[in-house]
Amino acid sequence: MAGLLDETVAVIGGLDEDAIRAARLRQDSLTKPRGSLGRLEDVSVRLAGIAGQCPPPLPLPAVVAVFAADHGVHAQGVSPWPQEVTAQMVANFLAGGAAVNAIAAQAGADVRVVDIGVATPLPAAAGLLSRKVRAGTADMTTGPAMSAQEALRAIETGIEIARGLVANGHRCLITGDMGIANTTASAALIAVFTGADPAAVTGRGTGIDDPTLALKVDVIRRALALHSPDPADPLEVLARVGGLEHAALVGLMLGGAAERVPVLLDGVIACSAALAAMAFAPSVTGFLFAGHLSTEPGARRALDALGLEPLIDLGLRLGEGSGAVLALPVVATAARVLRDMATFDSAGVSGEKA
Amino acid sequence: MAGLLDETVAVIGGLDEDAIRAARLRQDSLTKPRGSLGRLEDVSVRLAGIAGQCPPPLPLPAVVAVFAADHGVHAQGVSPWPQEVTAQMVANFLAGGAAVNAIAAQAGADVRVVDIGVATPLPAAAGLLSRKVRAGTADMTTGPAMSAQEALRAIETGIEIARGLVANGHRCLITGDMGIANTTASAALIAVFTGADPAAVTGRGTGIDDPTLALKVDVIRRALALHSPDPADPLEVLARVGGLEHAALVGLMLGGAAERVPVLLDGVIACSAALAAMAFAPSVTGFLFAGHLSTEPGARRALDALGLEPLIDLGLRLGEGSGAVLALPVVATAARVLRDMATFDSAGVSGEKA
Repeated sequence: MAGLLDETVAVIGGLDEDAIRAARLRQDSLTKPRGSLGRLEDVSVRLAGIAGQCPPPLPLPAVVAVFAADHGVHAQGVSPWPQEVTAQMVANFLAGGAAVNAIAAQAGADVRVVDIGVATPLPAAAGLLSRKVRAGTADMTTGPAMSAQEALRAIETGIEIARGLVANGHRCLITGDMGIANTTASAALIAVFTGADPAAVTGRGTGIDDPTLALKVDVIRRALALHSPDPADPLEVLARVGGLEHAALVGLMLGGAAERVPVLLDGVIACSAALAAMAFAPSVTGFLFAGHLSTEPGARRALDALGLEPLIDLGLRLGEGSGAVLALPVVATAARVLRDMATFDSAGVSGEKA
Repeated sequence: MAGLLDETVAVIGGLDEDAIRAARLRQDSLTKPRGSLGRLEDVSVRLAGIAGQCPPPLPLPAVVAVFAADHGVHAQGVSPWPQEVTAQMVANFLAGGAAVNAIAAQAGADVRVVDIGVATPLPAAAGLLSRKVRAGTADMTTGPAMSAQEALRAIETGIEIARGLVANGHRCLITGDMGIANTTASAALIAVFTGADPAAVTGRGTGIDDPTLALKVDVIRRALALHSPDPADPLEVLARVGGLEHAALVGLMLGGAAERVPVLLDGVIACSAALAAMAFAPSVTGFLFAGHLSTEPGARRALDALGLEPLIDLGLRLGEGSGAVLALPVVATAARVLRDMATFDSAGVSGEKA
């Protein structure tokens, strides 16, 4: 158990170059002008590289794992929402009433809710995975958010959940998150891993006003000054200024990559966690797709560092996995096109004149 | 029959303002920060205005109507693809091997193929609607592409097909098209309706080289010089420099709006036809959603004139309806969210602190 993270990182390989070549050749043989499906073609090629076969399997069934946790930094007044909303929203997820439920229902994705660190005890419920590492993080402005051991446990929980979902037949993992004040931890992580100034990567989250935004930036500056986190030591970074859901998402990404399934990223929480995952295992990015571009400024900065382009850009800033699940049909369609379209030869369609 | 176009235009009303207000209020009561679903919220609100009820019905089942026709201007050398590819692709659609088939299969949309003007006779086949108005247009550089009577027949055919599909239970119409050289007619239409210089709205279509692009621009300039089409007379514009599939798509849009169902636009062919539809009935734009942004430069210009923002931008330039069908899950999700999400009250979730 102590070595699960190292073991997982060691297993993550590169994309399968033979499958990638085969996918490119196949795309160029399909009944359409070359390249005319734009980035859908690139998605399909990468799916082939991930699966190690061409055509790749459809990324279905897919599942969004929504990791819920609380944040001690909430005490600093970075959010207008009371902390109990985290637990209330878990109940909403379980009852099927949240945005991610509606979006997942339309996309045909399953939803799993994981208590990785909600501050209050949650009653056992069907569909809730109780994996609480601790009852919320501590306030990062006064000390580490958690211990390195706790961060490791959250990461390993994410890995275990990824393994279990894939063993259960899921062929695509989608990142979801819930945690009042978690955009503060996300901005801190992005500042550490990209070297950006906190003001450049801190956003309004649920929609805070100017004074609260200024306070939020100041809170992050103070936390970074206190901890001086070393971006080369992602476990320490997560422990000092991260969140339990961030650590668990790192595990989900690493675990998904080790299992060679695509992982769809939601917004700024997932993108900040992906930077930590990349610090553990640089080749993990080959397995990640950016579902959408959050309006949080840190999201674009993180995606640039990850080398990922978002699939959808509709001004979402909700979290929960909502934007990633919205992009699932695009990824599934990319695979479907590569698998099902006829070739010029098979369909008897004439090609371009030379 | 002679009055079907006028009758349809007369029926098209505005969006239902009561339903729009109700939808905005409902969005603001759902368990998420206000506005956090970005443009999904706007889509849901407009769907309510179209349907005249809140929440609006899901735009399902949806159907893509692929109108196929040939273009006399092909003789000018504007495309490297032989004209017979139009008919060959119709066979590919009917066999299920084209991109639009794979994308529609993933989205759960039906596909209808309409011969509105393919140059060669097509054998009767299951799934093919034979509504040929004429065997391809004439070369617009030497005379009108078709007569006004023929353009009217193609429009009315589109209206009839829209009516039939809605009567059959379809709750969303998606524009599809096939016609070698049809980006030339599209660019001509966009130049006429927006006043843009042909060079600014003419693109590479299937991927033509620089000399062919220069030739294509020159062909359009010559056609416009010959006809001097009056943008205030859309029937004459379509007859002189349009295509049979463009005219039929105008009918599909007007017919869909008259039936108060949303119409999803594909790329530059649909966008150019939408400009003609708007010239017939300005309020039709309230019923149109731009599925995606084609890489053809005329698409952006047309969308600006239509006042529409694309839902997806992934560099597609294939046509057939591919980009619009790809956007169907986004539109369906918007409706689903508004219909299915819990409110703060119903879910017992606390609101923001004032």
